[in-house]
Amino acid sequence: MNLDSESVPDFSLGQGLLPAIAQDATTGDVLMLAYMNEASLAETRRTGQAVYYSRSRQRLWRKGETSGHVQHVREIRVDCDGDTILLLVDQVGPAACHEGYKSCFFRALTPEGPRVISERAVDPTTIYGRHD
Amino acid sequence: MNLDSESVPDFSLGQGLLPAIAQDATTGDVLMLAYMNEASLAETRRTGQAVYYSRSRQRLWRKGETSGHVQHVREIRVDCDGDTILLLVDQVGPAACHEGYKSCFFRALTPEGPRVISERAVDPTTIYGRHD
Repeated sequence: MNLDSESVPDFSLGQGLLPAIAQDATTGDVLMLAYMNEASLAETRRTGQAVYYSRSRQRLWRKGETSGHVQHVREIRVDCDGDTILLLVDQVGPAACHEGYKSCFFRALTPEGPRVISERAVDPTTIYGRHD
Repeated sequence: MNLDSESVPDFSLGQGLLPAIAQDATTGDVLMLAYMNEASLAETRRTGQAVYYSRSRQRLWRKGETSGHVQHVREIRVDCDGDTILLLVDQVGPAACHEGYKSCFFRALTPEGPRVISERAVDPTTIYGRHD
């Protein structure tokens, strides 16, 4: 365990990018997993709202920047190895997922294949911007 | 969203390895994040117990193989993009974390640095095998 508090989390362990889990602070639902670099974590801490790093767009991704579905961050946790981040958030709006579901984990693997197990909370065509 | 059920999750999106979150099925606590390859997911489904892929040891990692702290898997979920796995588990034993905490996320980031926010559940020197 890295005890140097300046390097927790240690972004070098993920070549600059670490997975960040967003969990609903009230219900405990796991909402999504995205990635953070050092700048996005700093912005998250500065603003109190979740800011990730979009690997596809290769830039900071202010969650909710187009949809308004921002995440207010209550607490930031880091795991034993210092290579994973857990955000406890208050999710604004009905859906964390760009597909219109509350959580991105709306499918379960069954012997017959993936099966949708959640109700859509909002029509995704009314959400602007993929991944918001 | 990939609608081909044969390729959900799609391991090619992570060059063969995808992050897998383990969440306590009863309490909702996020216990840990590890990685899975296709073989570890197949073993998890076959055995009903969490099997990850250890990046450091470069082999399948049967969670609890040395500590006995296995994870019985109640449900396997996959996210919208098909590149993250969520396991709902019944954790056997007091600790998912090799440091002796129930959850690997036992530290919060504070303005003064990382701070331990959980009680140790077990003396880690009594747990054999790092990461078990």
